[in-house]
Amino acid sequence: MEKYLFGVDLGGTTVKIGLFDENKQLLEKWEIPTRKDNGGSFILDDIALSIRGKMSEKCIADSDVTGIGIGVPGAVTKDGVVNKCINLGWGVFNVEEVFSQKMGGIKVKAGNDANVAALGEYAAGAGKKYSSMVFVTIGTGVGGGIVLDGNIIAGKNGAAAEIGHLPIAYDEEEVCNCGKKGCLEQIAGSAGIVRQAARLLDGTNEPSSLRNIQYISVKAIFDEAKKGDKLALQVVDNTARYLGIALANVGCMFDPECFIIGGGVSYAGEFLIDKSKVNYQANVFHASRGAHIELATLGNDAGMYGAVNLF
Amino acid sequence: MEKYLFGVDLGGTTVKIGLFDENKQLLEKWEIPTRKDNGGSFILDDIALSIRGKMSEKCIADSDVTGIGIGVPGAVTKDGVVNKCINLGWGVFNVEEVFSQKMGGIKVKAGNDANVAALGEYAAGAGKKYSSMVFVTIGTGVGGGIVLDGNIIAGKNGAAAEIGHLPIAYDEEEVCNCGKKGCLEQIAGSAGIVRQAARLLDGTNEPSSLRNIQYISVKAIFDEAKKGDKLALQVVDNTARYLGIALANVGCMFDPECFIIGGGVSYAGEFLIDKSKVNYQANVFHASRGAHIELATLGNDAGMYGAVNLF
Repeated sequence: MEKYLFGVDLGGTTVKIGLFDENKQLLEKWEIPTRKDNGGSFILDDIALSIRGKMSEKCIADSDVTGIGIGVPGAVTKDGVVNKCINLGWGVFNVEEVFSQKMGGIKVKAGNDANVAALGEYAAGAGKKYSSMVFVTIGTGVGGGIVLDGNIIAGKNGAAAEIGHLPIAYDEEEVCNCGKKGCLEQIAGSAGIVRQAARLLDGTNEPSSLRNIQYISVKAIFDEAKKGDKLALQVVDNTARYLGIALANVGCMFDPECFIIGGGVSYAGEFLIDKSKVNYQANVFHASRGAHIELATLGNDAGMYGAVNLF
Repeated sequence: MEKYLFGVDLGGTTVKIGLFDENKQLLEKWEIPTRKDNGGSFILDDIALSIRGKMSEKCIADSDVTGIGIGVPGAVTKDGVVNKCINLGWGVFNVEEVFSQKMGGIKVKAGNDANVAALGEYAAGAGKKYSSMVFVTIGTGVGGGIVLDGNIIAGKNGAAAEIGHLPIAYDEEEVCNCGKKGCLEQIAGSAGIVRQAARLLDGTNEPSSLRNIQYISVKAIFDEAKKGDKLALQVVDNTARYLGIALANVGCMFDPECFIIGGGVSYAGEFLIDKSKVNYQANVFHASRGAHIELATLGNDAGMYGAVNLF
């Protein structure tokens, strides 16, 4: 009999769900909205119903499902207890047990979304050819996950790999979402990159093609930098400098085989990666200088792939 | 029949050797000099002879020895290959195989000295009550080791936990022993602390009791700071600031249950630890703020304890 797995990537806006075969090959994927009313209390029912619907459609019996993996936006203990997913309105409960019960006892495993996405890239994406990997996702926020020999490093409080909150920018005076100052995310997250440009534009009279753009985006900054705009290039160079220093800090700690960079900002591509690599190599301990720094390949599917690889 | 283990801590000046019972309790310890002539080619024979001597004295047969653990000052792969211990003059060879052969086939396991010392504190010292630990040793140099659930994190090139070379001091202009600039060791290693004082004394006319001391040591700086000398206090505060930021970087990555601080500089004790803790908590991700920061308890014996705990 064919066996199946489901991989669930539970985000603040949408839930991505994938049906996988027993070799963890994606067969089908779809999305449902994340219903956050009433303290997020409908979310697990919505997901359960959606998976049940797919099982009926495909004539998949409960006994044919090896398990359901789920990545959630918050810390998850080894035993499956979530400790407040603020974005969802969730409190503290065992998501593995509760969701398994809703699914008639099918085995459920849960993990933090960034860690699970890291596991996805490790098992099925850019990290596939490496034994140890540090995954960095750069979007609005900066997150990450560490996978050593197939195991996620989760940390005592489920807060390992908080790469976005490495204390890096000593002279930053604004406060990060996390409550402290000088986090990598404040420089290298998309809001941080745009803010760097705004500060330079406000603080100088230097001519810049960015002055002709009404709403400056990360893409605009990278595009103008590639065309040679000095001010835009300054933003990119500064971002790459701190990103390189952050990766070097991580490199000195883990000495990983590779860094895999994902998230929206990474679509700026080789331009940012190449510049960050130079800064990484200048700042990391010499023995770790050869670590591969590559772009992620699974995009938004990383979470689903990682979720099934919890099994 | 009683079973025994030997723990060897191979340093650049002396070799510390311990005889342990099967419960890894230290029965006896002694030292021999590290003979570095001729590319360090006598070292393993010297250790083998010394252990053989102890075995004869105690009537311990080869079959009564469970194993010999050895910490060496350099990177060691999982398979026991050392990759140039510069301090010893060693090249590349399998130290486990070679030493086992010299010992009539008794099982030998080897690890990097800082990692092995970390394992010692974890198994038998200050880390005993914790499941995950980051060990930081602050002496002439700054080193460390990371132990998660009893396993050393060694890194792809045996260069994980190079805490002393975290890129931390962005405005440092001198070059570290490792070849790059701005390493934690340049601030927080004993030479770094003394150099900070020298720079302040040379760069200002500020009165300081340190000006009356001919050879300024780390101990003198801490003593004068405790007595209220402003300049000495500035050195201590700056050291604690960067040490705190470095620990916060490590905390954001591993979210460990505890940090254990050892090495000569740590004998300055709670004074430095308390100040570093404040800086740690201000700079680490909030979820990891509660990590314990404590002093090591095994002192120079940590390496021997760690070596037998490789088994």
